Amino acid sequence: MALSTQPYKGARDFYPEDKRLQKYMFDKLRQVAERYGYEEYDAPILESLELYLAKSGAEIVNEQTYTFTDRGGREVVIRPEMTPSVSRMVAAKRQELSYPLRWYSLPNLWRYERPQRGRLREHWQLNVDVFGLAGSEAELELIQMANAIYKSFGAKPAMYEIRLNSRRLMDYILREYLGLNEVEAFSLAKLIDRMHKLDRSEFIALADAICSASEREAGVVEKLLTVLDTKTLQTLPADLREHDSVAALNGLLVALADSGVTNVRFDITIMRGFDYYTDIVFEVVDLHPDNNRAMMGGGRYDGLVGLFGVEPVPTVGFGLGDVTLANFIELHNLLPKLTSETDVYVATIGDITAGATHAIGELREMGLNVAVGLAGRKLVDHFKIADKKKIHYVVIIGAQELADEQFTLKNLSTTESEKHSLQRIVSIVKDYRETNRKH
Amino acid sequence: MALSTQPYKGARDFYPEDKRLQKYMFDKLRQVAERYGYEEYDAPILESLELYLAKSGAEIVNEQTYTFTDRGGREVVIRPEMTPSVSRMVAAKRQELSYPLRWYSLPNLWRYERPQRGRLREHWQLNVDVFGLAGSEAELELIQMANAIYKSFGAKPAMYEIRLNSRRLMDYILREYLGLNEVEAFSLAKLIDRMHKLDRSEFIALADAICSASEREAGVVEKLLTVLDTKTLQTLPADLREHDSVAALNGLLVALADSGVTNVRFDITIMRGFDYYTDIVFEVVDLHPDNNRAMMGGGRYDGLVGLFGVEPVPTVGFGLGDVTLANFIELHNLLPKLTSETDVYVATIGDITAGATHAIGELREMGLNVAVGLAGRKLVDHFKIADKKKIHYVVIIGAQELADEQFTLKNLSTTESEKHSLQRIVSIVKDYRETNRKH
Repeated sequence: MALSTQPYKGARDFYPEDKRLQKYMFDKLRQVAERYGYEEYDAPILESLELYLAKSGAEIVNEQTYTFTDRGGREVVIRPEMTPSVSRMVAAKRQELSYPLRWYSLPNLWRYERPQRGRLREHWQLNVDVFGLAGSEAELELIQMANAIYKSFGAKPAMYEIRLNSRRLMDYILREYLGLNEVEAFSLAKLIDRMHKLDRSEFIALADAICSASEREAGVVEKLLTVLDTKTLQTLPADLREHDSVAALNGLLVALADSGVTNVRFDITIMRGFDYYTDIVFEVVDLHPDNNRAMMGGGRYDGLVGLFGVEPVPTVGFGLGDVTLANFIELHNLLPKLTSETDVYVATIGDITAGATHAIGELREMGLNVAVGLAGRKLVDHFKIADKKKIHYVVIIGAQELADEQFTLKNLSTTESEKHSLQRIVSIVKDYRETNRKH
Repeated sequence: MALSTQPYKGARDFYPEDKRLQKYMFDKLRQVAERYGYEEYDAPILESLELYLAKSGAEIVNEQTYTFTDRGGREVVIRPEMTPSVSRMVAAKRQELSYPLRWYSLPNLWRYERPQRGRLREHWQLNVDVFGLAGSEAELELIQMANAIYKSFGAKPAMYEIRLNSRRLMDYILREYLGLNEVEAFSLAKLIDRMHKLDRSEFIALADAICSASEREAGVVEKLLTVLDTKTLQTLPADLREHDSVAALNGLLVALADSGVTNVRFDITIMRGFDYYTDIVFEVVDLHPDNNRAMMGGGRYDGLVGLFGVEPVPTVGFGLGDVTLANFIELHNLLPKLTSETDVYVATIGDITAGATHAIGELREMGLNVAVGLAGRKLVDHFKIADKKKIHYVVIIGAQELADEQFTLKNLSTTESEKHSLQRIVSIVKDYRETNRKH
């Protein structure tokens, strides 16, 4: 029986045209991250299981991870997220590193779940973290950067929205304002995180079930709903407005507006799934009706590095996935025409001779990316293949061309042909490349 | 108990300085591959187990793979090599793709083995394959490209050697010339593959054990040793010299010499481990005494795509690992000084104001990569940190600078400071960046 040609379920093959889109996206992500002074790092895709048991959302380790025992009896995990790895790396060199430390990476991550639009088993994620900034300049910088990322793809503010909340505020609401115990508060926080997937009546029923009878009678769920319906910091109940987390959120909103980021608002329902967030959390939502979901999320997690037995480091970070970004770019028609990295396709007439090999070598020496067609094909077939490969120019090399040192350069979009020296060909093609480089 | 900060055994963390070296290497690898008209592709790191059972060397699947059963009961493998994946991808679009197809990738690969110098559990590998070329122009192109790769790192021909052999020739020697049966020939091929790790007496004892008593008496092992001691095609026994594989090897050596590749020779002991090679095989050996090993290896494998139930495609490919390449670059002192991607480090005097944020934004808008120091630090501490981060310039921004629109630019290598407009600073830093870009 023949082998299957399918990739593993929920994972993608990247043919050159797919890889081209990925490279276009990753180049922009790297460019913006580096514009903000972030340096790239990486870590192994396998990590020990204990790293995730410590602090990730429990459901991630239990049901959604790729976990197995290696041949040496170690329990290992194919990383479902990068934050534990980067925290481990910072902890390992806690004393040697200079703060603020600005790091980014572009790891592939694995989660065992049913593949669906925007969620695959393997995806890539831009991870950006700043370590060593306790003040809100960290959140300001990361949200500015996230905004710069979407702008770099040509997005307009009306296409997406940045939403902020505070885990400290939510803790205060659940524990102090509503008077819930720790278990109830935790369960309600998880429920609020899923709120946008539930009907209001479903949400109320589930919230009722979490609260005790006396709490229900005291109107805790109604009080919670009133708070969750609040759209601005200014319209929060007065005793919440005085909590210092509200001032922090407000300060951040004002600073963002001052720096020109306008499509940002407070959203009290934003929780972000991971248990490790300690303060402000944020996400970026695609406003396109067909992709109305969070494309990026992050927040402050000051406690993670300290789990490794070193002095804690204040940290803010975010993750931005490739699948939702690609959906965003495509749905909003932001994708430029991506052409091949190959500048010219060489069509040889007759057998390839040492002379043709030499001419091809010269084109490469002078800086062109050159693919060579199969000897013996008809010219018209060479043109078709080059066009299919999205290569813009064909250079024809035969005995006559080598004798004259004049070679035909065919432009496949205009279909014009001209004879030139190799030097002139290189100059024409480089000019074209410079003016048409989209990335 | 505190969590361990160690990465998984045999795998590496890439701190920014390590990642910088990797990016330097990968950029060059990509550049050369694209110069030869190759396009990048990728595939998932998980593949089904059956993909490897079909044609890889059996020892790879049995002892050295990371294999496990996923939550859906599928047997999966963390890829130990890329060749099965790329063959699968070509087979999946056998009819749609245009040949010759030139593809490359830079995957990370996993093998369960004891970590040692030059061999880790996780490594990256440049994989280059050309599909659809049945003639020796394929081998010629790939060996030229491999040579161009080492040259691109500044290597001289005396630092490395390209070695060629032919699997067809070896099959002919083992089966026809020595008259061995299929099982003996297979075992001897595997033994020859390990020959450089064995004493001559060990090799003879193991070869004796593979042969039958009558073969030993007929002097098969002595005859084999005479052949294996042969250093050139011209000194092979006369009845071997007439085999057509020798003419093919000779033609390739001549074509390589014609194209200026001089450090190449025939080496009859080169087998390359994988069972799927069908004809010419080659490797590149580091000639440095401290790293005297194959750094790159490949060959022709015409049968793999056909295993997926489609028409076979002639294929030549090679793999070039990151660990041995890094060792090569370091041992031969070919590593340039790699600096940060961050162009300037901003030291603010006093609290960061909206004015400072605006000036920083302008530097970024004008194309500089800018990291911002922690507010409130002393200038001398900012200088130290920027220097440690290998950033060349510090820009000082305080209330006076903002009022004058003149900012201090400090060059950390000359320690000189000058006051300039933001525009002038950008121009100076860009000039520096252009002249000092090593990659």
